[in-house]
Amino acid sequence: MKPTIGFIGLGLMGGPMAKNLARAGFPLVLWNRTREKAEEFAHESAGSDVKVGASPRETAEKADFLITIVSDPPALEEVLWGQDGALEGLRRGSTYIDSSTVSPDLVRKIGKTCKEPGVGFLDAPVTGGTWGAEKGELVFMVGGEKEVLERAKPVLEVLGKRIFLLGPNGAGQTVKLAMNLILALQVEALAEALALVSTVGIPGERLIEVLQSSMARAGVLDVKAPLMLKNEFPPSFPLRLMHKDIRLALELAKQHGLTLPAAAASYSTYDSVKKSSKDDPDYAAVARFWKKS
Amino acid sequence: MKPTIGFIGLGLMGGPMAKNLARAGFPLVLWNRTREKAEEFAHESAGSDVKVGASPRETAEKADFLITIVSDPPALEEVLWGQDGALEGLRRGSTYIDSSTVSPDLVRKIGKTCKEPGVGFLDAPVTGGTWGAEKGELVFMVGGEKEVLERAKPVLEVLGKRIFLLGPNGAGQTVKLAMNLILALQVEALAEALALVSTVGIPGERLIEVLQSSMARAGVLDVKAPLMLKNEFPPSFPLRLMHKDIRLALELAKQHGLTLPAAAASYSTYDSVKKSSKDDPDYAAVARFWKKS
Repeated sequence: MKPTIGFIGLGLMGGPMAKNLARAGFPLVLWNRTREKAEEFAHESAGSDVKVGASPRETAEKADFLITIVSDPPALEEVLWGQDGALEGLRRGSTYIDSSTVSPDLVRKIGKTCKEPGVGFLDAPVTGGTWGAEKGELVFMVGGEKEVLERAKPVLEVLGKRIFLLGPNGAGQTVKLAMNLILALQVEALAEALALVSTVGIPGERLIEVLQSSMARAGVLDVKAPLMLKNEFPPSFPLRLMHKDIRLALELAKQHGLTLPAAAASYSTYDSVKKSSKDDPDYAAVARFWKKS
Repeated sequence: MKPTIGFIGLGLMGGPMAKNLARAGFPLVLWNRTREKAEEFAHESAGSDVKVGASPRETAEKADFLITIVSDPPALEEVLWGQDGALEGLRRGSTYIDSSTVSPDLVRKIGKTCKEPGVGFLDAPVTGGTWGAEKGELVFMVGGEKEVLERAKPVLEVLGKRIFLLGPNGAGQTVKLAMNLILALQVEALAEALALVSTVGIPGERLIEVLQSSMARAGVLDVKAPLMLKNEFPPSFPLRLMHKDIRLALELAKQHGLTLPAAAASYSTYDSVKKSSKDDPDYAAVARFWKKS
């Protein structure tokens, strides 16, 4: 009999992750802010052992492993410390894995809170996008103790192919924020360069073609440049979340007296596009900054 | 009998490019600001038809194809319009290829000047670094007329494997500046992210390892990250030239009323490191910005 997994957060990433766990035969207890999503999931998984929890607390109470993956720090705080929050429900000896992207400070606080009742905690944000979530090919950036990670591996290995233990609680989040800072700037750089060539009448397609033959080749070039050229931005990684992650990276830097000039400048660009976008676009929509002007 | 090539500028890129042309059997007339470099090159090429020109003008007079590749706009202007400048020497029906990275405005001016005496002109900046120059695997970004490029191809194909015709004179430079803007920001992003993880005690090597498994993978990660981790910056593409290229990109943007927030912020970082560096480091040395503080 496989251990029961409590799973909180059935968004773009969490949804396909939970599906993979159900497929792998883990009993699941789901909770989602919009309850219908969890019920729909349970309905679609008829035949598997999938239940909907009454609250985050009840979801945690039933879990040998609790996984949370929600959109931002306030959402995570609400799930953990809000009414009928998950932290009250976690059982001694259980393991809690948070795969949201939040601040290192917040996950360190969670880690401390988990210590007393004997719950093992990992911050384990992911990368790989919805594609990676669906294929079970996510990359986990983990902060926490080696023993806790060893316990969690049979679960994590259903979801991802690479698992990096990077240090104590907070280290996973730090590396994730550093990575997203890079992605945000790579995409901003691409958008600035496309704006520059377009403004003098050179088609963006020609720039991309040249870049592909050069040292400027990059993952974002394959994945995000086509969206920019079409000026269509269905959300794979929503801009509002990248906006939040740059802010978290800048806050972390500030705590340590570090200035990140390009990240700070780029944050303004993302911020401007976030404010002027009426839809919920992918972060590649930062390119809209130059369409407006 | 192969056409004679006048070659001006035997720097990190020009040196190996000229060597490949000599090896391919083209008669060469060389000119270099530091004359000894040209004489040494001719000496080492004993057996090939390699001469040293008395001046840019004399070098151009003997050339069926003139190639210039010098470090910046003032150096190019001096070579072309200075005393015994090359433009006076170019023969009717000859072809002039500039592979320096300068402003689109400057190469358009050169193109106009070449028209009257019947000289075909291409702006043809390159990418691929010293490695590409040595292997004859450069990428050419060309602005100019198709017929002129067809004439130049037997020469360019000795030096590079990919040749992109991007539009009229100036288009090659525009795409090159857009590319270098991207490279500058990719390297800045990497440096900012490394500073962030290092400051909380996570080894930079761990970040790089995770990035390699992610969408943040990029050419600069393979080539520049190792320099940053070792804190050693032998110049492959010198920071002073990248500094110049970001400035040129920002100037071009300004001409068109375009703001490039991250490029502008990054320019300040490169500028600060340029001013405080006593050596002539590679542009990956932008990472020094966070070592000092």
